[in-house]
Amino acid sequence: MIPSRKFLEEAGKRVAPFVHKTLVLTSYFLNEKSGAQLFFKCENFQKMGAFKMRGAINAIQQLSDAQKKAGVVTHSSGNFGQALALAAKSLAVPAYIVMPQSAPSVKVEAVRGYGGLVTITASNLEAREKAADKIVQEKGAVLLHPSNDMEVILGQGTAAMELLEEIEDLDYILTPVGGGGLLAGTALAAHYFGKNTRVIGGEPLAMDDAYRALKSGKIEANEFGDTIADGLKTNLGDINFPIIKTLVTDIIRVEEDEIIAAMRLIWERMKIIIEPSSAVAFGALLKEKERFKNNKVGIILSGGNVDLSNLPF
Amino acid sequence: MIPSRKFLEEAGKRVAPFVHKTLVLTSYFLNEKSGAQLFFKCENFQKMGAFKMRGAINAIQQLSDAQKKAGVVTHSSGNFGQALALAAKSLAVPAYIVMPQSAPSVKVEAVRGYGGLVTITASNLEAREKAADKIVQEKGAVLLHPSNDMEVILGQGTAAMELLEEIEDLDYILTPVGGGGLLAGTALAAHYFGKNTRVIGGEPLAMDDAYRALKSGKIEANEFGDTIADGLKTNLGDINFPIIKTLVTDIIRVEEDEIIAAMRLIWERMKIIIEPSSAVAFGALLKEKERFKNNKVGIILSGGNVDLSNLPF
Repeated sequence: MIPSRKFLEEAGKRVAPFVHKTLVLTSYFLNEKSGAQLFFKCENFQKMGAFKMRGAINAIQQLSDAQKKAGVVTHSSGNFGQALALAAKSLAVPAYIVMPQSAPSVKVEAVRGYGGLVTITASNLEAREKAADKIVQEKGAVLLHPSNDMEVILGQGTAAMELLEEIEDLDYILTPVGGGGLLAGTALAAHYFGKNTRVIGGEPLAMDDAYRALKSGKIEANEFGDTIADGLKTNLGDINFPIIKTLVTDIIRVEEDEIIAAMRLIWERMKIIIEPSSAVAFGALLKEKERFKNNKVGIILSGGNVDLSNLPF
Repeated sequence: MIPSRKFLEEAGKRVAPFVHKTLVLTSYFLNEKSGAQLFFKCENFQKMGAFKMRGAINAIQQLSDAQKKAGVVTHSSGNFGQALALAAKSLAVPAYIVMPQSAPSVKVEAVRGYGGLVTITASNLEAREKAADKIVQEKGAVLLHPSNDMEVILGQGTAAMELLEEIEDLDYILTPVGGGGLLAGTALAAHYFGKNTRVIGGEPLAMDDAYRALKSGKIEANEFGDTIADGLKTNLGDINFPIIKTLVTDIIRVEEDEIIAAMRLIWERMKIIIEPSSAVAFGALLKEKERFKNNKVGIILSGGNVDLSNLPF
């Protein structure tokens, strides 16, 4: 269930030529405010604006030549759809992206701009899955899951690998947790390349399936609730959860107003744009300041794709 | 009227220990869009969020010990007030900042947070000047002008010096122009450290005194008009204008909607926060794309202090 070190090393080599080695930024003010020494890994500066590019580029490269020719398909309405389209374009592979009617036209246009072949369906999950299945059958395309896929997980782990190459002795790395791909990949990276680096997930209280799963030992569902961190409205899966269960120290739950406050602090003080999902990891740190005091903490700022016409402040 | 190379070199040495050597960022998308190769000097990441820190720290160091003991005073309601407060604090010098009643409380608090001694007056210029004069007389403090002061100009020039150290063969450097301190300092830096690097100012059409001054050969006033680029609502002065007249190639005027569009492009594509004044230089480039085509162009992003509750989009 836990891939060995060499799988990560190989993913690192596969991913590197196609992604930005993103900046690691620090902030004197936020160090003072938190009492910890913070290192922000800026995946908001990544190609297409989010870490998801890493998993997509790794997964596509692992397909056979016949599969690459047939293409890849996903039904993510968020960053993974854009990431898959751009990654596929970089590798000259067709990408079919199923998107719900409810998706903002700017996102549909972004996917098309990256060369993705868009299919619009009804907004419910069933319709989206059905449309994706149809493409799999008709085109022979490979369905890629945004987070519950080992090659995607390994790809996402390369952000933390880069971070640990630059800052070797981190005590903690914090990431947001939604579907669990980034958290699982980060946990693997810390396990093999950290020096006793613990990994903690930040999760919206309103969608706390990962928190409950870590307590119960089994995958949990999000029944109700909503969150501004719209990239995190998903569940852990059977491939990433065993990694998370084994290698992640804890999940810290963050309330909506804390997410917005953390986001605003980073915008105002670091002058960079992060999406609400990214702010959840920093919000988790602020929520449990005492725990991180005087520690060196890496925070993965997962992305920067926000709708500037619809900000929470 | 034009200081020699050694004055800039010395300013560079004086300023360096007290400021961030800010990042130079690039954007594949914006290169494609503009047809030029762009290098953004990110003074929005500078201490207190703007280049003004550079001029303030240089000017204070040039005072005598007695002057330093008495302190410095300015009546800027914008970034220079904050810059002077923080620079003075770094050098253990008292800073008296005269601010109008109309200044947002967040700005007043920022100045106080940097240790500035704030005097609130009526919002008109006369009241502010009177209050500043009173402090000069009572405390013996030295009045520093935000842009029409040779030591301030030399300090502002250090941003372009750093940029040219990193990217040696820039064809152009663009800066916004308001009071003229940054533009004059940049022109000096390009003159001594560039390789035929031309300097162009971007100016709001509604406040185009620098454009008119370059045509008429004398300092011009802004009679009417308003601009979202609130840092640029000021006039050239008798110390910076001779430098600008001699060393600046041109001023490009930018309309309000072009400023906002340029700002939005940088936020959305580079995921960094810049203030409207900073967007004017990039807006000038977009306005006259043909002129810059296939050239290497440095753009000084002057600052990132915006009110997130009051955005133009």
